[in-house]
Amino acid sequence: MNFQGGIIMERKVLVEVSARHVHVSKEHLEILFGKGYELTVKKYLSQPGQFAANERVDLIGLKRELKNISILGPVRKSTQVEISLTDARTIGVSAPIRESGDTIGSAPCKLVGPNGEVELTEGVIVAKRHIHLTPEDAEKYNLKDKEVVSVKIDTESRSSILGDVVIRVREDFASAMHIDTDEGNAVGLNGEVFGIIL
Amino acid sequence: MNFQGGIIMERKVLVEVSARHVHVSKEHLEILFGKGYELTVKKYLSQPGQFAANERVDLIGLKRELKNISILGPVRKSTQVEISLTDARTIGVSAPIRESGDTIGSAPCKLVGPNGEVELTEGVIVAKRHIHLTPEDAEKYNLKDKEVVSVKIDTESRSSILGDVVIRVREDFASAMHIDTDEGNAVGLNGEVFGIIL
Repeated sequence: MNFQGGIIMERKVLVEVSARHVHVSKEHLEILFGKGYELTVKKYLSQPGQFAANERVDLIGLKRELKNISILGPVRKSTQVEISLTDARTIGVSAPIRESGDTIGSAPCKLVGPNGEVELTEGVIVAKRHIHLTPEDAEKYNLKDKEVVSVKIDTESRSSILGDVVIRVREDFASAMHIDTDEGNAVGLNGEVFGIIL
Repeated sequence: MNFQGGIIMERKVLVEVSARHVHVSKEHLEILFGKGYELTVKKYLSQPGQFAANERVDLIGLKRELKNISILGPVRKSTQVEISLTDARTIGVSAPIRESGDTIGSAPCKLVGPNGEVELTEGVIVAKRHIHLTPEDAEKYNLKDKEVVSVKIDTESRSSILGDVVIRVREDFASAMHIDTDEGNAVGLNGEVFGIIL
């Protein structure tokens, strides 16, 4: 809880579930889809400028594959694949739980597009729970970038407190907590749910 | 926490993950595997008398199927299928979160065995988090059958407190907490982990 002017303010945050997805580099996009190819917007996401693309790829693990994985745009400096631990075990990829961007030594996989294939030597992670905050909300909630918090999420039959949640503050963020599908299912998330930052 | 003779005792419980499985009635077993068929033991489980059978069935949902689902023995009065919410969404079965045995109005599915098929009109659930306790441990921990508790589970990067956990006390239980694969993955469970009943 946070105290402002003697009033206890609940630090509420919208909880959103990130389904498995791929961020691609320009170089890999061109291998997968062809020289000079650019991603096309299917749907804008809650984070400003981010979008689900119409383009999809297959993700090949050691045991099995996941077909038609959504690519999120715009392109990034390096390719990063975010899957759940359920996915990781199903397809045979030993993806570590990491923050976005922290891919050194993470798991390998193969991506297959209509124009070609990319053998990633690393880049597959399971996203660590995190909260995107605008600088304004971070100040209001008395939270700092990289701080680790717990979030209480009340649902009908799987209420939980999730710890190890990393705060990330940036100008171009919209305030929202991101968890993966395993976590969303584990807390029985359904519809618009707000968590309370403890 | 529990106080005994002025000493604070931590109420520790082993956390086990239940993968998707099927309990079958004698009648359905005979339809699936043939008249007079009996389950054979592949591996005994932590709960006394319970075993993973060598026999497996396919589970058909509205969208997709799950192949080779483990049957747990011995046979029960009625057939019950326990899957994760991830499974439920993948195969297109709207399974509710329920306690074992509480299957009235739960989801339908089709089971396919080597000898025949069973159309279940209900019986598919997502298991509600629960803790099996022996009467001795229940007394030691000052807990009662049907009581609802929270359990703190500390892991490397996904520490959590799971609420809505139902206590179940029975003579023929071994003390252990059971969560499903979504929950196990959401807390990053790996190896032998003990939870603390709060």
